[in-house]
This record gives sequence, structure tokens and C-alpha cells, in this order.
Amino acid sequence: MKHLCVIGVGLIGGSLALALKQRRAGLRVTGCSRNEGNLRAAADRGAIDDYHTDPAAAVRGCDMVMLALPMGGMRAAMQSIKPALGAGTILTDAGSAKLPVLRDAQEVFGRLPPGLVPGHPIAGIENSGIAAATVDLYQGRRVILTPHADGDAAALRAVKDMWQTVGAETHLMDAEMHDNILAATSHLPHMLAFALVRELANSPHHDDIFRYAAGGLRDFTRVAESDPVMWRDICLVNGAAILAAMDRYDDELTRLREAIATADTDALQRMFCEARDARSHFRRLLDRRERGE
Amino acid sequence: MKHLCVIGVGLIGGSLALALKQRRAGLRVTGCSRNEGNLRAAADRGAIDDYHTDPAAAVRGCDMVMLALPMGGMRAAMQSIKPALGAGTILTDAGSAKLPVLRDAQEVFGRLPPGLVPGHPIAGIENSGIAAATVDLYQGRRVILTPHADGDAAALRAVKDMWQTVGAETHLMDAEMHDNILAATSHLPHMLAFALVRELANSPHHDDIFRYAAGGLRDFTRVAESDPVMWRDICLVNGAAILAAMDRYDDELTRLREAIATADTDALQRMFCEARDARSHFRRLLDRRERGE
Repeated sequence: MKHLCVIGVGLIGGSLALALKQRRAGLRVTGCSRNEGNLRAAADRGAIDDYHTDPAAAVRGCDMVMLALPMGGMRAAMQSIKPALGAGTILTDAGSAKLPVLRDAQEVFGRLPPGLVPGHPIAGIENSGIAAATVDLYQGRRVILTPHADGDAAALRAVKDMWQTVGAETHLMDAEMHDNILAATSHLPHMLAFALVRELANSPHHDDIFRYAAGGLRDFTRVAESDPVMWRDICLVNGAAILAAMDRYDDELTRLREAIATADTDALQRMFCEARDARSHFRRLLDRRERGE
Repeated sequence: MKHLCVIGVGLIGGSLALALKQRRAGLRVTGCSRNEGNLRAAADRGAIDDYHTDPAAAVRGCDMVMLALPMGGMRAAMQSIKPALGAGTILTDAGSAKLPVLRDAQEVFGRLPPGLVPGHPIAGIENSGIAAATVDLYQGRRVILTPHADGDAAALRAVKDMWQTVGAETHLMDAEMHDNILAATSHLPHMLAFALVRELANSPHHDDIFRYAAGGLRDFTRVAESDPVMWRDICLVNGAAILAAMDRYDDELTRLREAIATADTDALQRMFCEARDARSHFRRLLDRRERGE
């Protein structure tokens, strides 16, 4: 890869560009955004060498295009770049759901382009925008790639290589599996946090509630400050998987509710013990991963 | 206060005893627990001067008794100490719900003792036991005291003073208000985390789910490792307030679910914006408090 175009220079695209510029001498990065202020800020930070507000102009001559956009912007971006995209250009993205990207590409290009390698860096934080971009956002993080059956092996290698350059670990997964797992582990917890913050804010005692809240509530609600447009789009494109996860969750909450309503001492203790054991298993997995095992 | 008895030498009682022994020269602390191993460990750490496994023997001659027990143990402890409790002895506790402590005391003593000052240090962490006790657990934390109408002003001053000695900030509140606020800000989020961990653990993909989970899930589920017996008891004694909070929460989750199911772009964006604004208001309150303003 000699010339990368990053469409969308927010936290995700901006951090990738910053890290690549630092680690790959000679790489040219062209930025693209509808917002010229963002492009100037990205150029000032040294994330991009040049920029265009027109996607077709931005991708011309690039050997890889990264769509670092909210899910709702993917299809329009594909339509805009289609006429200017070279035959061998690799197309990848950083969207939070992967089946919708495949669907968008199928519709826009009439087939799944061989150079298309959908991807998802699991590195979101509640901040957003180029100002929040950092050179080490992807260090030690995982990136899930969901290549399709007619994909080009060289394109997959190039996308893997790009993510490894910025310190990430790449994993391959089926797109549907990805969307279900992310619905359960990321999209559902975000919905729970959004709903909790709304419930607390709408409470008659909301000032006291926020005043006397314990520290745990800060952790629990942190993700509720995430970008509303990004999450709106995730709900729109991965709605089915999110609703399925919400239904399974609702079953658990109902069981717990019934045990409380009937003062079922044994059921409560058993459910909390099982939850504690599952959480400590999860913590050990995370600790082991962080130690690099 | 010259002689304190701490009944229950786990995280909460042990940390209080450790901090008081360090900061109040000449204070004698007697520990009480059914588990003699815990008592020896507390004595080895210098948290207590002596100990008894019999509550009546432990409280004899003390001028203050702290019940640092799971909520389910309060009434039995009050019954055990009743015959040995001096007329002027101050009785306080560290339980997570306050109306039940008042009810237990009313039943055991036939009235609310003037020396009774129910309290709740908002300093829980997911660890428990004397091994997890630390000398600075209460530094900068808030302790809510819910004195009753027939309470003795000197007893309230002594309990306030004890908490301030270990670095905590004391606040007065009505017991019912306390229980409702804690149901919303602590008990409900714990229920949500317990249910989420159970849902993930019961999923057919649970290994992949835990393997690919983003860091946010660690924050979100941390409290699910909290002591099952303590939480069973909280659900049993503060069930009505918890169920009310769960119902309000369920309304919010249902609204969100409907917006996803109907792909209501505007409603989703509006709900996420409102949640973000409420969360950032909450974050500013917490930040200001941490800076000591």
C-alpha cells in the first residue's frame, strides 16, 4: 500500500491515519470528509497529506480506501466513489456491523467486489471526532475482518497488514456471527446504559440521584455519552440482532424480577452466584489477554 | 468514643476498624464474627484489639456498636446484643437499605432506641472480606445517615464524627428517600449487570462472546462479581423500591426497543442525544465533586 484514502476523519479514521503516517515512511494518506474543518484539523495533526471533500476525487489513484463512517453513510459513500474506484483498489471499512456493509456493496456494485474486505476495529471509546484521535488507539486491540467468499486473498493480506502495522491483532469471522456477537457484547450494553441514564434523568429525584450516585454508576453509564448518530445508525442496520439480544436479556431480567417479587431467597442467591462465576471467568480471560497470553 | 464493637469484620467493618485504629490513638476496637478465622485475620491486620464470636459478649462495655453485616443478618444481631447493650450505647450500621434497619430495630427493641443512627457508606466495591479491607476505603466517600425522629443528637454527632475521622463526608437523608435513591443508582444497575452476565453466559456463542468482548463490557459487568449473599439480602429487604426502579427502567427499554423495531430514526437519535446530555451532566457533577468543589 502506497496511497490510502480515509473517508471520514473522526476518531476511528483519524487515529488509523495518524498511526500509519507515524509507522510507514512514504505512505501517502488522502483524507475525505464533508466537513472541511475536520480535514484541516486532520492535516494539522499530520494524519493526512492532502484532502478532498468530494469522495470520487479523493479515491482517485489510491490503492486502498477505508470507509471510517457511521453505518448510515456507507452506501452513499460507495455510490460516490464507484465511478472513480480503480479495478484493483482494495475497499475496507471500520463499521460496527458487517452484514449491512456486504448488503450495501452488493447493491451499489451489483456484486461483492473482490477487493472488498469488511472490518471492525473493537476500539471504540465514548469520545469521537478528530480531536479525540490518538496514535495508539489500536495498540493491542482486536480487529475483526469478515472477508466474503469471492474476496481476493491479496486484499485480505493487505488489510491485515495495515491493522498489524498500527499494533492491532486481526481475527477472521463470518459476518453474521460478528453482527450477533457485537449485538450481545457491545450494542446491547449500550442500549442498557442509554436506557438507564434516561430512566435516572427522568426520575423525580434526579438531582439527588446524580448527587448521591456511587462510583459504579459512572462505569456503568460511561458508554451513554457515545455519539448519538453512530448509535442511531447501528440500531438501524443491526436492529434484528440487537432486538434478539434484548429479548434474551429481557428473559433474564424477568426471571430476576420474579425472584425479587416472590422473595425467592434460593433463586436469588443461585442467580447471583452464577453471575459472579461467569463474570470472574470473563475477567480471567481479559486479564490473560492483557498479559499477552 | 473509647470502645467500639464492630460486628462483621469483612470489607466494610474491617476497613472502618483499620482506619479508626490508625487515626484514633487509645481507641479500643472489639471485633465480632461467627467465623473465628476472620477475627484472627482482622486482629493480625491490627484492625481489632480483641474479639468474641458471641455478639452479647462482644458489645458488653462498648460505647458504640457498628453492625457491618449483610442486611439479612441485622435483626438476629440486634436480638443477640439486646440483653447486653448498655442504656447509652450508640448503635449504628452500614447496611445498603435503611427502612429495614429501622423496622428491625422497632421489632427487636419494641421502639426505636434513641442511640440508633442508621448509616450507609457509599463505598462498596466488588470485593469482599477482611483481606480486601483497606485503611483508605472511606477517604473522600459519602456516608448517608438516616437518623429517626426520636434519635439522640449526641449519638448522631458521635457517628458523624466517627465517619469524618476516616475521611468520609456525612449527609443526612430520610430513610425512605435513601432506599429509593439507592434502588435507582446502585441496586438497579447491579440487577442489570447480573442479568447481562447471565444472558451472555447462557448464550450459545458464550466463548466467542467473552473472547471478542470490548473493554466497555468489563466496566459494565464489574459489579456482577459482588457478594451474592449481600445482594440476595438487599433484594429481599429493598425489593419494593428495586421493583419500582426496574419497572421504570423497563418502560425506557421498551421505548427504545420500539424505536429499533420500527426503525424510527428520529426517535433513536433524540433518545441517544438526551442520554448523552444527561450522562455528561452527571460526569460534570462527579468531576466537580472529585476536585472537591
